[in-house]
Amino acid sequence: MDEVSSLREREIIEIIHRCLEEMPSAPISFGDDVSAVSIDRDMLAVLTVDMFVGKTDMPPGMTLYQAARKAVVMNISDLASKGVKPSIVLTSLGLPRGLSREEVEEIGRGLNAGAREYGAYMVGGDTNEASDIIIDCVAFGKTERRNLISRSGAKPGDIVATTGDFGNTACGFKILLEGLHAPKGLKERILKAVYEPKARVEEGYVLARSRSVTASIDSSDGLAWSLYELSKMSGVGFLIDRPPIAPETESFARLHGLDPVNLCLYGGEEYELVLTVKPEKWLEARSLISRLGSELKRIGVVTKEKSLKLSLNGEVVPIEPKGWEHFK
Amino acid sequence: MDEVSSLREREIIEIIHRCLEEMPSAPISFGDDVSAVSIDRDMLAVLTVDMFVGKTDMPPGMTLYQAARKAVVMNISDLASKGVKPSIVLTSLGLPRGLSREEVEEIGRGLNAGAREYGAYMVGGDTNEASDIIIDCVAFGKTERRNLISRSGAKPGDIVATTGDFGNTACGFKILLEGLHAPKGLKERILKAVYEPKARVEEGYVLARSRSVTASIDSSDGLAWSLYELSKMSGVGFLIDRPPIAPETESFARLHGLDPVNLCLYGGEEYELVLTVKPEKWLEARSLISRLGSELKRIGVVTKEKSLKLSLNGEVVPIEPKGWEHFK
Repeated sequence: MDEVSSLREREIIEIIHRCLEEMPSAPISFGDDVSAVSIDRDMLAVLTVDMFVGKTDMPPGMTLYQAARKAVVMNISDLASKGVKPSIVLTSLGLPRGLSREEVEEIGRGLNAGAREYGAYMVGGDTNEASDIIIDCVAFGKTERRNLISRSGAKPGDIVATTGDFGNTACGFKILLEGLHAPKGLKERILKAVYEPKARVEEGYVLARSRSVTASIDSSDGLAWSLYELSKMSGVGFLIDRPPIAPETESFARLHGLDPVNLCLYGGEEYELVLTVKPEKWLEARSLISRLGSELKRIGVVTKEKSLKLSLNGEVVPIEPKGWEHFK
Repeated sequence: MDEVSSLREREIIEIIHRCLEEMPSAPISFGDDVSAVSIDRDMLAVLTVDMFVGKTDMPPGMTLYQAARKAVVMNISDLASKGVKPSIVLTSLGLPRGLSREEVEEIGRGLNAGAREYGAYMVGGDTNEASDIIIDCVAFGKTERRNLISRSGAKPGDIVATTGDFGNTACGFKILLEGLHAPKGLKERILKAVYEPKARVEEGYVLARSRSVTASIDSSDGLAWSLYELSKMSGVGFLIDRPPIAPETESFARLHGLDPVNLCLYGGEEYELVLTVKPEKWLEARSLISRLGSELKRIGVVTKEKSLKLSLNGEVVPIEPKGWEHFK
């Protein structure tokens, strides 16, 4: 009855968490985007693992190069959300029989590209036979202890912000999995979000050092879920009044009579940072990010009341704690 | 033609290696047991990943608890072979649908046990749906740069040694996979080697600090293959004159008319350290290890001639560079 088909991914993590002895004075809680351990008085080693599984993570049309690159980028994004730059990446591969030399090379080139794009090196790993394509990476970086941003520091009154727009991956999945149509240029821009996600490494690094950010998470499970996790771990709520809808998502939603807010909130596989920022540091944070050629978008405010709400056109509605999840 | 069914694991690693940009001044070569990166002038961060795949790594009769524990131990063994103690372990799980809550708990308890046994903590990871049971761990430790033992420092005249006996896992696989018989007590001792391997963390740590060891590798791919790798990366050869055959292997071989030397050399999934030791430091190294309640066994000598040879009963024969390998 309690099988994995019914056990959700997060229940499995909870069951396993309860079996683990806790490390004394861990620098960051279990369940945050990364794990960390002291390497000396001031410095932390920061690690994250995230597994790319062909069967569930590889949408139609994604090349092996893109898959391998994404497997690296999704790990680097977890470091980015904590303000940490990656220095090395390792990977464990599970490969089905029947891959050609060219396909293995595609994977190799994708792994290298994902790491080098962010200044890191792919330095090692191992290879196994498996039924699926499994590309499991670990990214490592170090950081000063005082610069590590956790998920748990958001305070009522803080500004909720993102490093970019949302919705295009949800549109992309509608195109790839449900066969929805989009004109060529729009389709290309939307699919780029699915096939070639980017991690916000420089943004996270600069923000961590500005001491303006009180909590941060990457948005790989979708905006709504990321907000839910941040709010839960910080013991606060959020009132979102400017959902950061991507222009492509607006167009795609209009074309198909879809709700762009839903596409923006309940997607996933996006790698923007979702942050809370001290109000007195907002302008400074915004200007730091625009100097990188990006934009910090104010999407709402942290509330004392522990609920997730969306205020739109004078109406306030709850944001559901749902998003991308395996074992759905 | 060049498919993964014909591409061997080590060819795949070679193909991928050629796609990777090399990290300048990497503290250890690609293809060693671990990867490492500088964290300050004197210290290195040391990482290793190794994937446990149910289909190929889980022999009949192994429990999920034992599988999870082993998945941790095999990573910790890689650190041990470089003289590094583990501080944290992370794991990426791929789980098939249909696992019960109790089975997930078994995995959780096994992960915890594997880490705590060696003073480390399991601090994080992620969970995914997959067709096989995949338990992919990363172990992290730090070490002084001067104490990292690589695979490449063996010199002619050095003593070749192991931290224990070999052969029992090969016998275990014959019992489990080929149905060979063994009396109860013998069978139990043999299967313990398969189900509950141990990593030689204290041994590796103490030896690294004694500055007696010139090269080291863990023996997860079998003794012959480990010797081959050590010899290749050090540019030397080995003459083995006392293969470290386990007493259980001797008995099992006698029972079935098998060659105990073959069982000792060509097994795998053993986690002893295979080392080369400076002759003038041999007695010191041996005494350090006996103080830990273990035994450092002299099995041969490093030769200038780059070949692997076995000298037994006055006869010298080549040792084949073969052993445990996936994609066989």
